[in-house]
Amino acid sequence: MSHDPIEWIAADWGTTNLRCWAMSSSGHVLFRAESESGMNSIVKSGGNFETALLELIRPWLREGETIRVEACGMVGAKQGWIEAPYCETPCSPATLRSKAPSSDDGIEVWIRSGVKQSAPPDVMRGEETQIAGLLSLHPEFEGLVCLPGTHTKWAQVRNKEIQSFQTFFTGEVFSLLANQSVLRLTLAPEGTDETAFLQGVTTSFQSPESLLSDGFRLRAEALLEELDGVEARSRLSGLLLGHELAGVFKASDQPEFVFLVGSDELVELYRVALSSLSITHRSITNESAILGGLSKI
Amino acid sequence: MSHDPIEWIAADWGTTNLRCWAMSSSGHVLFRAESESGMNSIVKSGGNFETALLELIRPWLREGETIRVEACGMVGAKQGWIEAPYCETPCSPATLRSKAPSSDDGIEVWIRSGVKQSAPPDVMRGEETQIAGLLSLHPEFEGLVCLPGTHTKWAQVRNKEIQSFQTFFTGEVFSLLANQSVLRLTLAPEGTDETAFLQGVTTSFQSPESLLSDGFRLRAEALLEELDGVEARSRLSGLLLGHELAGVFKASDQPEFVFLVGSDELVELYRVALSSLSITHRSITNESAILGGLSKI
Repeated sequence: MSHDPIEWIAADWGTTNLRCWAMSSSGHVLFRAESESGMNSIVKSGGNFETALLELIRPWLREGETIRVEACGMVGAKQGWIEAPYCETPCSPATLRSKAPSSDDGIEVWIRSGVKQSAPPDVMRGEETQIAGLLSLHPEFEGLVCLPGTHTKWAQVRNKEIQSFQTFFTGEVFSLLANQSVLRLTLAPEGTDETAFLQGVTTSFQSPESLLSDGFRLRAEALLEELDGVEARSRLSGLLLGHELAGVFKASDQPEFVFLVGSDELVELYRVALSSLSITHRSITNESAILGGLSKI
Repeated sequence: MSHDPIEWIAADWGTTNLRCWAMSSSGHVLFRAESESGMNSIVKSGGNFETALLELIRPWLREGETIRVEACGMVGAKQGWIEAPYCETPCSPATLRSKAPSSDDGIEVWIRSGVKQSAPPDVMRGEETQIAGLLSLHPEFEGLVCLPGTHTKWAQVRNKEIQSFQTFFTGEVFSLLANQSVLRLTLAPEGTDETAFLQGVTTSFQSPESLLSDGFRLRAEALLEELDGVEARSRLSGLLLGHELAGVFKASDQPEFVFLVGSDELVELYRVALSSLSITHRSITNESAILGGLSKI
């Protein structure tokens, strides 16, 4: 007895990772595979995108057949496999794709277009596909979508289109401050203290103008009061996220509903923060969003 | 004809540098010397503070005589030569000092105490001496002092005492974002565009909650509109400084007068920013502030 045949392959190809799914005709995941052949490592090593992809999915290919690969993410950037031109807001997400040149007859690779916004200038690659996936699961959804990540995106969705969006590089700033600023001497390398996290969220949401002072204070508290390293790490995380949320919600007196799309760990962080601010939310996983988005052509 | 004899030696001994001045009895600078033997490099190399000092000032010593060295800065920290205990606010700055143990009869080294604050927790080492110097030059001064640096200090001075102070690690965050975040791909390594700088100051002063989004926008503008690298660098600098100023002045409806003490380059940056916000200011140089502070015992 053979299982379902592989009908097509989904690829989430970002800056640091390549993740692939072998999909059945009925939309089920048959196999998963992942490597660290993200765009950056390929560009840096002078490598080849096709080779990196084939290395990962070769076991899924069949002699004499051509399988379709649907990809999204930084693989469509200027330094990627082929530049997939941006769609401009307002636009229906992930409906355009570019065919990547390949020399192997076993694959036919399509890369989704990212989305750009002119005023204020902003860009996304990959998140538009997650939003398309959200819309395939919840076709009538309208409102605010948050896609947490190194560069978190907040998008306004209406009429099945991305109307506008805003990027916060909160995750990247956290990582730099935790690992490379003077705070590295104070912060534990891991661990979570929810009370300290929420203390940071509240402080920064109420006084976002004090971020560069509130951050340094963790160091002073460590010197003067032996602040615990996990507490310090969680408070910094909360300070940065509270600052982001102040930026998102400053314009509206009344917090809105938020749909979260992302990894379990980051979504949990945002859930806790949003709950503390009495902002309602739901979430779907990264995987279901990406597969939903790449299933639609 | 011989010049004035060296009466004492002043030392500004920070995290990354050691700067010394040979002083006459009348308070004139006879010689200057500088090395990169800051606290960090000595601690890291397992070196010796006394050796590092003697390497720099040996030519100024005379056989059979003991010369007094007055030092301030991180050399008095826990990892420094000897821990000079903090004074606590409110306090008269740089009036306490600790004698550092030395094996060479040619020097007698005194290190000024830093200042700590309990609520909210904050610390300074070195800046208290600059403030003492400011007070020796302007004994009646009361008001706000700004000491720009990697970790900029803002201090309230009244009755010749530091009443309170606040640290912003703006300089350190700028350096991390410019050199190590995604913005490194966009920012020129140097150069100043005053218009872009002031644009950043204004944006961030008015909307400090948007810092983590305004920062990323520089990258998007570079991708979509080929934003100039010098313009991007200056705007980022302005965004961070405007954010700091929003934090300092949030509480007061009316901007105050500010006395600036620091390096020419940083003071100029703050002057431009403060002027654009119609905040009046004066300044003295780092050197005159430190020498003024170390002259008083």
